[in-house]
Amino acid sequence: MQTESSPSRGSAGTKSEPLLIRVLKGETGPRPPVWLMRQAGRYLPEYRQVRARAGSFMRLCYTPELAAEVTLQPIRRFGFDAAILFADILLIPDALGQTVEVREGQGPVLPPLADAGAVAGLRPDRLHEHLAPVYETVRILRRELPAEVALIGFAGAPWTVATYMIEGGTSADHATALRWAVEDPDGLQRLIDLLVASSIEYLLAQVRAGADAVQIFDTWAGRLPASAFARFCLAPAAAIVAGLRAEYPDLPVIGFPRGVGERYRDYVVETGVAGISIDPTVDLDWARDGLQPLVAVQGNLDPQVLVAGGDGMRAATCRILDTLGHGPFVFNLGHGIVPQTPPDHVGELVRLVQGWRA
Amino acid sequence: MQTESSPSRGSAGTKSEPLLIRVLKGETGPRPPVWLMRQAGRYLPEYRQVRARAGSFMRLCYTPELAAEVTLQPIRRFGFDAAILFADILLIPDALGQTVEVREGQGPVLPPLADAGAVAGLRPDRLHEHLAPVYETVRILRRELPAEVALIGFAGAPWTVATYMIEGGTSADHATALRWAVEDPDGLQRLIDLLVASSIEYLLAQVRAGADAVQIFDTWAGRLPASAFARFCLAPAAAIVAGLRAEYPDLPVIGFPRGVGERYRDYVVETGVAGISIDPTVDLDWARDGLQPLVAVQGNLDPQVLVAGGDGMRAATCRILDTLGHGPFVFNLGHGIVPQTPPDHVGELVRLVQGWRA
Repeated sequence: MQTESSPSRGSAGTKSEPLLIRVLKGETGPRPPVWLMRQAGRYLPEYRQVRARAGSFMRLCYTPELAAEVTLQPIRRFGFDAAILFADILLIPDALGQTVEVREGQGPVLPPLADAGAVAGLRPDRLHEHLAPVYETVRILRRELPAEVALIGFAGAPWTVATYMIEGGTSADHATALRWAVEDPDGLQRLIDLLVASSIEYLLAQVRAGADAVQIFDTWAGRLPASAFARFCLAPAAAIVAGLRAEYPDLPVIGFPRGVGERYRDYVVETGVAGISIDPTVDLDWARDGLQPLVAVQGNLDPQVLVAGGDGMRAATCRILDTLGHGPFVFNLGHGIVPQTPPDHVGELVRLVQGWRA
Repeated sequence: MQTESSPSRGSAGTKSEPLLIRVLKGETGPRPPVWLMRQAGRYLPEYRQVRARAGSFMRLCYTPELAAEVTLQPIRRFGFDAAILFADILLIPDALGQTVEVREGQGPVLPPLADAGAVAGLRPDRLHEHLAPVYETVRILRRELPAEVALIGFAGAPWTVATYMIEGGTSADHATALRWAVEDPDGLQRLIDLLVASSIEYLLAQVRAGADAVQIFDTWAGRLPASAFARFCLAPAAAIVAGLRAEYPDLPVIGFPRGVGERYRDYVVETGVAGISIDPTVDLDWARDGLQPLVAVQGNLDPQVLVAGGDGMRAATCRILDTLGHGPFVFNLGHGIVPQTPPDHVGELVRLVQGWRA
């Protein structure tokens, strides 16, 4: 039975499900599905047009018709196997009352939390009201997307989102957030708990509106010292996965704890994700032998290799496909696409992956 | 026979060698030696006095009496088992003609290399003349240090130094350097080769002047994609180790490829270092099982834990000692000490480590 609230378009396990979903459930298809992190973005002229029309980045995120349009642009242009909702990991802090401003060339700016006491002043009660336009974007996408294209929802992981809330934006060393982790771990835990609960609410609403799978972006997981990793990366991710599974037992969740090296394996074992997205530093043979027996692997072309294109890109792509393509695998970059990327290189990459056979 | 040019103070392998050197040669003592990266630095009031007297950071590096004085300060105050030469990883680019300025609170600034063509304009011929004051600092330290305190020389790893030369200073994402690695790997290789040769020359001169061991700091190794890691991290480190061993077969070399996760093991296997310094993200059990059977391990207390001090610091320190202290191990931080560190916490840490018994 297909309803708007089902976590995937067809019945579980049938061939009518999008390729991405089948792979995340453990199948190895004739070839891997392909999508790229930040595939809707500034490298596309049609994105820049819509972005200009929206006036601001945050306004683009909150205007369903425009957010849906930029989500669809790379699907139309390149024929990716999955669309990822256009939104931002800082919409949750924005919804909680820490107003976010995104300045061109400078990144996001928000008034930093003074200390753990300030967590009590956040407003989880207004979450759904504030984020309603995002759910509307998902509903539009559900209608507009071809059946074979999976729709991925997402949220930032609690630790990564907390770093922005504590630092007031992007930070070179995350010194203040790391100091919270050490000097006031219980205070940080209160913020993390709030973000776990908000992320579950937010992601469930995305799935109810039509997302087939979700990804958790823990961009700064690699900064956590070993002593804080289990508490502030693994446990929150495990709690989010469990919270989602309570309502959607078959929902595929992809984790992306960027830059965690040998700890990717712990992440897979401890969180129960269906897919693990690996960054460009991860050795392919290690990923095949250590991760792929447990879970679908996603990644990990270096975004700069895609900028360069040519023989180097073709060789790197083939090496990834030949190493990981014989098991459950989703082709992707190892980090978001960068604005300097020539769209033609993206087109060639998609043709390469979609033409490859296991 | 003890000469000024011997790589360690006593005859090889005898008990008269400093504890650090014995551990780097594979011995497990009654307790690990302890020193801290950046132990001569801004957290010490006596350092700030000398730094003010020198006028500028670079001038402090190039004034042997002052550089030796700040190197000795933490030895006198805390009784560390090793002193590390006070210098900077950017002295090589400065010597090569890319003049470095260090601005308080902003970090180093140097005129960035325009492209690989600019490598030909660098001046390796003036290396030793420019760096002669550093060698003089080492000679002073050799005279002044107690026999049981090891003297560590150091250099930045070629990739890390290259990132500063290409970016013109510290960089959040190293995008330009990473682009060189992808778009002009042979051009980057010319720069790396020059830095390998200069580093060997520089480190050999430090050893001739009296350093007992050397450490190679590859602070940004963790940013290299897997496809470029062997070429730009492993191969240069292996070449430096081989170049040093050609003159000093028993010289202990410590490698610190920060943030490389599961690739620490490759680094140990491929470079032939005697010691591997691990950052705070590395799991202790993994280090004990995967690294310590091959090499002496050094690390990895989180610098923020040292800032916080108290029970948290004591518990983290004991866990490190109990896990790694039964094999060849050097107690250290996982990254440089930060200026906010209360000196009292450092004193307590040193007493803790030196009072521990395997």
